Amino acid sequence: MTMATDKRLHDRKFVRTFFTTPTAEKGEDDSAKKLRGAIGLRGMQAPDVWVPDNEDATAPSMREEGAENIAEVVAEDGADFPGEIHPRVVWHRDSPETRYDGFQQMLTIADPQKGAVENIDGFVIPEVGDIDDWKKADEFFTMVETEHGLEEGSLAMSVIIESGAAEQAMTKLRTEMGKPDNNLQRLFMLVIGEVDYTKDMRAITPTGSLPEWHEIRHNTSSAASAAGLIGVDGPYDDIRDVEGYNERMKENQAKGLLGIWSLTPGQVVEANTNPLPPQEGYWLIDADGTEVELDQDGETWTYRGGDISLEESGDDYVLTVGVDEMELDEDELRQELLDMTSYVPSLDDIVDSMEEFEAAKEAGKGAIAMTRAATISIDGVEIDISSDRMWDEATYQALQTPITLFQDVYENRPDQHEDLAEIYSEDVVERAMEVGS
Amino acid sequence: MTMATDKRLHDRKFVRTFFTTPTAEKGEDDSAKKLRGAIGLRGMQAPDVWVPDNEDATAPSMREEGAENIAEVVAEDGADFPGEIHPRVVWHRDSPETRYDGFQQMLTIADPQKGAVENIDGFVIPEVGDIDDWKKADEFFTMVETEHGLEEGSLAMSVIIESGAAEQAMTKLRTEMGKPDNNLQRLFMLVIGEVDYTKDMRAITPTGSLPEWHEIRHNTSSAASAAGLIGVDGPYDDIRDVEGYNERMKENQAKGLLGIWSLTPGQVVEANTNPLPPQEGYWLIDADGTEVELDQDGETWTYRGGDISLEESGDDYVLTVGVDEMELDEDELRQELLDMTSYVPSLDDIVDSMEEFEAAKEAGKGAIAMTRAATISIDGVEIDISSDRMWDEATYQALQTPITLFQDVYENRPDQHEDLAEIYSEDVVERAMEVGS
Amino acid sequence: MTMATDKRLHDRKFVRTFFTTPTAEKGEDDSAKKLRGAIGLRGMQAPDVWVPDNEDATAPSMREEGAENIAEVVAEDGADFPGEIHPRVVWHRDSPETRYDGFQQMLTIADPQKGAVENIDGFVIPEVGDIDDWKKADEFFTMVETEHGLEEGSLAMSVIIESGAAEQAMTKLRTEMGKPDNNLQRLFMLVIGEVDYTKDMRAITPTGSLPEWHEIRHNTSSAASAAGLIGVDGPYDDIRDVEGYNERMKENQAKGLLGIWSLTPGQVVEANTNPLPPQEGYWLIDADGTEVELDQDGETWTYRGGDISLEESGDDYVLTVGVDEMELDEDELRQELLDMTSYVPSLDDIVDSMEEFEAAKEAGKGAIAMTRAATISIDGVEIDISSDRMWDEATYQALQTPITLFQDVYENRPDQHEDLAEIYSEDVVERAMEVGS
Repeated sequence: MTMATDKRLHDRKFVRTFFTTPTAEKGEDDSAKKLRGAIGLRGMQAPDVWVPDNEDATAPSMREEGAENIAEVVAEDGADFPGEIHPRVVWHRDSPETRYDGFQQMLTIADPQKGAVENIDGFVIPEVGDIDDWKKADEFFTMVETEHGLEEGSLAMSVIIESGAAEQAMTKLRTEMGKPDNNLQRLFMLVIGEVDYTKDMRAITPTGSLPEWHEIRHNTSSAASAAGLIGVDGPYDDIRDVEGYNERMKENQAKGLLGIWSLTPGQVVEANTNPLPPQEGYWLIDADGTEVELDQDGETWTYRGGDISLEESGDDYVLTVGVDEMELDEDELRQELLDMTSYVPSLDDIVDSMEEFEAAKEAGKGAIAMTRAATISIDGVEIDISSDRMWDEATYQALQTPITLFQDVYENRPDQHEDLAEIYSEDVVERAMEVGS
Repeated sequence: MTMATDKRLHDRKFVRTFFTTPTAEKGEDDSAKKLRGAIGLRGMQAPDVWVPDNEDATAPSMREEGAENIAEVVAEDGADFPGEIHPRVVWHRDSPETRYDGFQQMLTIADPQKGAVENIDGFVIPEVGDIDDWKKADEFFTMVETEHGLEEGSLAMSVIIESGAAEQAMTKLRTEMGKPDNNLQRLFMLVIGEVDYTKDMRAITPTGSLPEWHEIRHNTSSAASAAGLIGVDGPYDDIRDVEGYNERMKENQAKGLLGIWSLTPGQVVEANTNPLPPQEGYWLIDADGTEVELDQDGETWTYRGGDISLEESGDDYVLTVGVDEMELDEDELRQELLDMTSYVPSLDDIVDSMEEFEAAKEAGKGAIAMTRAATISIDGVEIDISSDRMWDEATYQALQTPITLFQDVYENRPDQHEDLAEIYSEDVVERAMEVGS
Repeated sequence: MTMATDKRLHDRKFVRTFFTTPTAEKGEDDSAKKLRGAIGLRGMQAPDVWVPDNEDATAPSMREEGAENIAEVVAEDGADFPGEIHPRVVWHRDSPETRYDGFQQMLTIADPQKGAVENIDGFVIPEVGDIDDWKKADEFFTMVETEHGLEEGSLAMSVIIESGAAEQAMTKLRTEMGKPDNNLQRLFMLVIGEVDYTKDMRAITPTGSLPEWHEIRHNTSSAASAAGLIGVDGPYDDIRDVEGYNERMKENQAKGLLGIWSLTPGQVVEANTNPLPPQEGYWLIDADGTEVELDQDGETWTYRGGDISLEESGDDYVLTVGVDEMELDEDELRQELLDMTSYVPSLDDIVDSMEEFEAAKEAGKGAIAMTRAATISIDGVEIDISSDRMWDEATYQALQTPITLFQDVYENRPDQHEDLAEIYSEDVVERAMEVGS
C-alpha cells in the first residue's frame, strides 16, 4: 500500500501560524473536546499548521489517551481541515525512555487502521539535541513509515529548537541532509521554544520575563534559509497583549522568521493577518525615536501627537522634535520631514510598483525611480513632500516576499479567500495573484 | 601515585566570579605579596574561581618567578582557599615559543614536589585559536598529568576566547570532546577576553571604548550550554563604575552568561552577589523608556521621578508619560499601569511560588496562576493593580535557575553561609535549599 | 610564462572602499564610458578596491561586451590606477548556466593577449552558496590561471555573502582553506550583499527598508578575522544621506567590519576618510541618550543643545538632563559630567599616547595612566574634569588598529599622501608612520 501523503509534504513554502491544542484532558466527558474544537476552525481562525500537542500541553498521564484521541479526531474530520496537521509527540535528548514513548505515539497516530494518517502531514519533535539526536528521531519516522506501508520520507519532521545543542545542530543540516543513511530531507519546520531554551541556557532576568534572544531567532532563520526549511518563533505567553504579539511578529519578519506559535484562535487570527501587507498604505513619522502613524484626510497626513511641533516664523519654520528646536527654511524643512517620514505600502501599492517595474523591464530599462508623494500637516502647517526610490531587479525581488507569501496563502488556503477578498477587494487579490510570475 | 584531584574537577555547576592576581612583581620585598593577599580572601570577597595570572597581569620577565610563586603560595595556603584555583599560563596560537613556555609553567606549578597540585583545579589558557590549537594545549595537560603521576584528565582546562578563530572553535566542541585521541572532556570554562578580541577583530570605536560584542557573548553562552561548560564574561575595566558593572552582569544573565571577570575584591563582592535574587522584592515602572524602581511604603509603591505624572479629572485620569498625555478611565488606567509595571521577586518570593507550584502539581494540576498585587502611587493618586501569571512545568523549570545557582553556591561555599544568612535570613536560606529537589 | 601578479595579492591588509562601476551601457557612443571615468579616479576619490561590475550593475545583454570593455580599459589605464582591481563576474549557486557564463567572463578578462591581467588583482563572485559552491568557483580560477599561464593561486577570489548558505560556508573556511585539492587560499574579501540576503532570508519590513542584519555583519567580520580575510559591508542605497552612511560605518567599525561598498565617488571619499582618526580630538556628551559633540573654545568645551541645563544654586548645582533634575555638590557634579562625557582622540592624540606608552614600556613599566582634562561649559557654568585611563599592553594593541590602518593606507596609496598631509599635517603623518613598529 502506497499512500499519497507526500503530495502534501512541503506544499507550503510559508507557515504563518503554528497552533497547539491539548490532546486529552482529565475530568471532561470527552477528553478530546479541545481537539474537536480546534479541527473545526476555518478561515483566519484556522492555522497554517495545527499541532495536536501530546507533549507540554497535555498531562503526562493523559498522553497515551492523547495519541488515540489525535488518531480518532483526525480520522473523522482531518480531510476537511484547511491547514496541515503535525502532532507533537514527546522526545528528549537526555532520555531514551521519553524517546521510546515518542516513537510509540507516532506508531499509534500513524496506524493506517485508525484512518488518520492520510491527513497527518508530519510530526513535531521537541527537546532535540545535536544532529545525531535528530537522526534518531528521523530513523523512527522511517520505521513508522515502513511498518505502516507509507512511502519513506513522506512524513515531515519538524523540531523544536530549545537547547544550545540544537542551536548548533542547525549549522550541520546542509552537510547531513541528503546522506544515504538518513531521510533528513523530511525536515520541514525549525520552531523555537524560548521557555525551555532559557532554561537550557540558564538565563536569568530580574522579573522572570523571557530574554529577547535575538541571536537564536537569527540563527534559526538563517539555518532555515540555508536548508530550505521554515522558521517559526515560539509562543507569546501574554495572550491579552495583542499589541506586543504584533510587535514581536514585526521584529521576527525583519529577521526572515515569518511564522509564529499561536496559543489561541485569537492569536491565530493576528498571526495569519500580520505578515500580509496592509489594506491601506500609510505614512509613519519618527516622533523623537518612536514611529507614529499619521492620520489620513485625503492626500493630507496629519500628526496629532505631542512630540513634534511646527510653526511658521516669517519665511522660515520652527520645527521642534522632543526638546530639539530647529529653525529651517522651506527646503530644509521639506528635507527634514522627508528624513523623518516613511511610507508603508498597501498590497495594492506593492502590486502597482511591481507591475510598473515589470513593464519598465519589458521596455528594456534596468532601473526606475518610484515616486511617493504626500502632504504632511503638523499644527496646521502643511508641507508637500515627495520621495524617489530606485528599483532594480534586486529591489524588485527583495520586495517580492510579501507577494510570494500572499500567493502561497491564497493557493493553499481556499478557506481564507473570502476573508482576503473582504480585506483587499477582489480586484487587488486578482492582480496580486498575477504579478511576479 | 594517583591523586584524587578529579574529585574537585567540575564540582561547580556555576562560576560567578573569576578573579585574577599578578603572580610576581618586581621591586617588592616579597614578589608574591599580591598572591598571598588574594589567597587569604574569604566570604563574599573570595571568588568562585581564583586565577593567579601568569600572563597579562605579570611582566614577561617575572613569569618564571611567577610560576614558582604560585606553587609556593598555593602549597602553603591553597587547602584553606574556599574557591577553585586555576592559574593562567602563557599561550599563543601564533607562537610555538609562547606555547612551550606555557607548558613549562604548567609543569612547574603542578610539580608534586612543590606540594601545590592537590589544590590546583586546572589551568587557564589564553589566546587560543581554532580547535586544533586547543588540542595542543590539551596534550600538554596530559603530559603534565602523566609526568607528575596525576590522573589523566584530572586538571581542568579553561580557555580565553579572544579571537575569531576561537569563536569558531566553540562550535566544534561537541564533535571533538570525547574522541579517543584527546582529553578535551577536561574543558571547564569558556572565558571571553574582549580587549584582545577587539584587537583580533580589528574593531574601532571613536573613543577607544570596547564595543558591545553582543554576538560573542551569545555564542560563548550557547557553546557553553551545548558542551556542558561554563561561560564567563571578560573584565570590566572601569573599576569605580559599580553601576555599570552591575548593569553588564544583568545583560549577561539574560544571555545565560552567569560568570564575570573581577579585577578587585570589590568587584568580586558585586559579582558574587549580583546573580542571586534580591533580599526584598520590588516593583519597577517603565518611565518613558527607563525602568525605575518604585519606593515602598507597606503595600504602596510610589513613583517619585519626573517622567510620569498622574492626576484625577472628574471620574477620569490624566496620565502623562514623557510628553505623551493620555485621558483614561479607571479600568484603562489600571491596564496601562499593569503594562508599565513589573515585579522583581525576592529569593523568598521565588521559593514561595515554587513551593506553591510543587503543591499544585502534587494535587494533579499542571498549571496555576500566580497573582501579584500592589497599590501604585503617582502624584498622590493611588491605584490598585493585580497581575496573574500562568505557571506550568516549563515556567517552573526556567525560573528555577536562580535557585539552582543559590543551591550550588550554598553547597560549595560554606564560607559564604554567614553572609547569605545575613542577607536572606536563616529561614529563607533553609527553604531555598529544600525547594525543587 | 609566469606572471608576478601574486606580488600584489593580499598586499592590502585593509580595504576601506569597494567601488562598483557598470561595465557596458547601451545607447552610449562608448559603452565603456563609465569604466573610463572610474579608472581615472585618484586620491580620496579612488577606492582601495575598484570593481568593474559585470553582474547587477550591467544589463544581462551587455555583459559579453562588458567583459571585453573591462579588458580593454584595464589594459590601457590599469597600470596607473592607485587601488586594486577586482571585476565582478556573474555566478549563481542555483544555475550552472550562470556559473559557466562567469567562467567565460573570467577567461576573457584574464586573457594575456588582451594585456589587462597584469593589473587585474582578482575577481568577485556573487551569489555563492555553501563551501562546495565556493570550490567550484575556485576551480575555475585555477583553470583560468593554468589556461593563461598565470601562477596558480595568483588571482584573488572574493565572494558576496548574500544567502543563508553562504553565511554557513564562512564557518567552514578554516577547515577547507589549505586542503591540497583546492586553492582557497586565494580568498581575499567577504563582502555582504544585504539586498539579496534579505530576499534569500525572505525578510519583510513594513516600509521595504533593509533590516539591520546585525548578525550577518558580525558573522562576516568574525569569519574574516578567523580566516585572515577582509570583511566589507554592502551598499548604502540612499546616496544623499551622507550622515546615515557615516553612521553605518561607525556601527560597522565597532564590529570590526572596516570596509564598505561605495556607489559614487562621493561615497568613496566618505568611506576612505571615515575609518581614519579625526584631525582634531573632541569631547562628546551623552545628552539624554544621544551623543552630542561639544563646541571647542581653547580648553573649554561648551554644550549648546536643549537637553541638558545646569545652574548654580548656592554652593550646589542643579543639573537637568531631559526631564531628570539632580541637585549635586561640586564633586558629584564633576563625577556626573565625567560619566556623561567622553573624548574622541585625534590621530595626533593617539600617536602621543602610543609614544608615551612605548617610552614607559622601555623604562620597564607595564601599565600607565593616560590623563585627559577639559573644562566643560553648560549654560555659562564651567567645571573642570579630568579622567584617567589605564593603558597596558593589551590596551595599546587594541587601540593600535586605527594606526595600523593608517599605515596600510599610507604605504599602499601614495596618491593619497597629499590629502593625508593636508588633513593631518606632515609632522603628524610622519610620527604616525613611525609609531608601533
